[in-house]
Amino acid sequence: MSGTKKRRVKLVVAYDGTDFCGFAPQFGQRTVHGTLSEAITQVAAEDVEMLGASRTDSGAHARGQVVHFDSTRPILPSKWVRALNDLLPRDLSVVSAQFVHAEFHSRFWAEDRWYRYRIQTGPQDPLRSRFVHWYGRPLDVGLMHEAAQKLVGEHDFLAFTQLIEEWQNTVRTVRSIQVLQVRDEVWIDVVALAYARGMMRRISGALWEIGRGRREPDWLDELLAQRVKNEVHWPTVLPASGLCLMKVRYPRHAAAP
Amino acid sequence: MSGTKKRRVKLVVAYDGTDFCGFAPQFGQRTVHGTLSEAITQVAAEDVEMLGASRTDSGAHARGQVVHFDSTRPILPSKWVRALNDLLPRDLSVVSAQFVHAEFHSRFWAEDRWYRYRIQTGPQDPLRSRFVHWYGRPLDVGLMHEAAQKLVGEHDFLAFTQLIEEWQNTVRTVRSIQVLQVRDEVWIDVVALAYARGMMRRISGALWEIGRGRREPDWLDELLAQRVKNEVHWPTVLPASGLCLMKVRYPRHAAAP
Repeated sequence: MSGTKKRRVKLVVAYDGTDFCGFAPQFGQRTVHGTLSEAITQVAAEDVEMLGASRTDSGAHARGQVVHFDSTRPILPSKWVRALNDLLPRDLSVVSAQFVHAEFHSRFWAEDRWYRYRIQTGPQDPLRSRFVHWYGRPLDVGLMHEAAQKLVGEHDFLAFTQLIEEWQNTVRTVRSIQVLQVRDEVWIDVVALAYARGMMRRISGALWEIGRGRREPDWLDELLAQRVKNEVHWPTVLPASGLCLMKVRYPRHAAAP
Repeated sequence: MSGTKKRRVKLVVAYDGTDFCGFAPQFGQRTVHGTLSEAITQVAAEDVEMLGASRTDSGAHARGQVVHFDSTRPILPSKWVRALNDLLPRDLSVVSAQFVHAEFHSRFWAEDRWYRYRIQTGPQDPLRSRFVHWYGRPLDVGLMHEAAQKLVGEHDFLAFTQLIEEWQNTVRTVRSIQVLQVRDEVWIDVVALAYARGMMRRISGALWEIGRGRREPDWLDELLAQRVKNEVHWPTVLPASGLCLMKVRYPRHAAAP
């Protein structure tokens, strides 16, 4: 492999987001983008521009965040994994590396993103508290799952976003939602092409309100029909600690030929 | 229930030990004992002396640490759980509370203590890194389990303790050791009446050396035969992050009559 040929590298990374100010770069803050970019630049010994698939919130976690960058260094994917993990802190790791198509883009080539929100219904557990939202009482999971099906498909998720500029488009396509009880946790698994800002934590909040009996499933129809912000009751925003980006899916031809 | 009658309360507590300087009180440090005592004193609104079953190391975790204290307040066990958990930080929780025999002592009445050491053999995982020791390669679990049986019974565990005063007794009785592979982790489960300081992390270190092929099982016989410190190669001390106090067992009559 030539030392000067530019190769595009795709990384799958995982992190405990508790002590990061989110993924996106922010001056003077500890972010996933900043910490990972620094490590890549150090291994590559050249300036590297890194881009990511999903701007996870401050405090949210990832098992399958995806980033990409170009490097002229003749470093094999397995070596990227080892060299980066030697530098990275304990709460951020590279899961895998791969050479990809020269045009591959972690954000624009993504076919869908799978997020999981975890609500703990059992007693408080300090060994899990960074990764779940603790509720501590039972939820009607069957009702939540049934209601959630209303959100599947193309909808205007305006009511499920944080305050935004008026011109911003809030129409998104949700491919599937599964709500299931796993031991003493309720998992809300959403697969969507893309998400409006804060959407996943508000979908989870709305379903939680339904699961605890505060709202009827029909309330979701009202929310989806909203065309102006601040008109009805907006769903609760659940904390970022329960949120995890599980996987970003790409077309098969993304791998380098 | 009278407001002045003194009752002895037993608590089972769990903690993520990463950000605690161990269980035992230390002036000016954040310890489990200090944090929990403060909360109890606040709820009881009286001075309370609290004692614990096991002095877990700095950074070690617990699912089933046990403490006891006396209070004259007419507070029911379920109320103790709720009131304390309202005050306690996210990394420390009360699992359960119970009125116990007036003579009950969390340390001296304990019949045995079950500790688990977790070694991760799979790829690094930032969402588990606080709770495991990451090794990242396979271990011969069958050999580890077989070798571990040499440690069961009454032995002088001098070689498995940190440097101690000469007069200190290092004879302990290990009731059982199970080494098992659970997904990409190796669990070393030890049940013993009591442990010498650092013993659990050195037993785990010795078994890890055997599992990775650096030492033969017979090496354990040599270690157990040691009567002077610093004479042979001592087992590696694995980091506290992998260690968790799972359960402390008491006789049935410990509950209040």
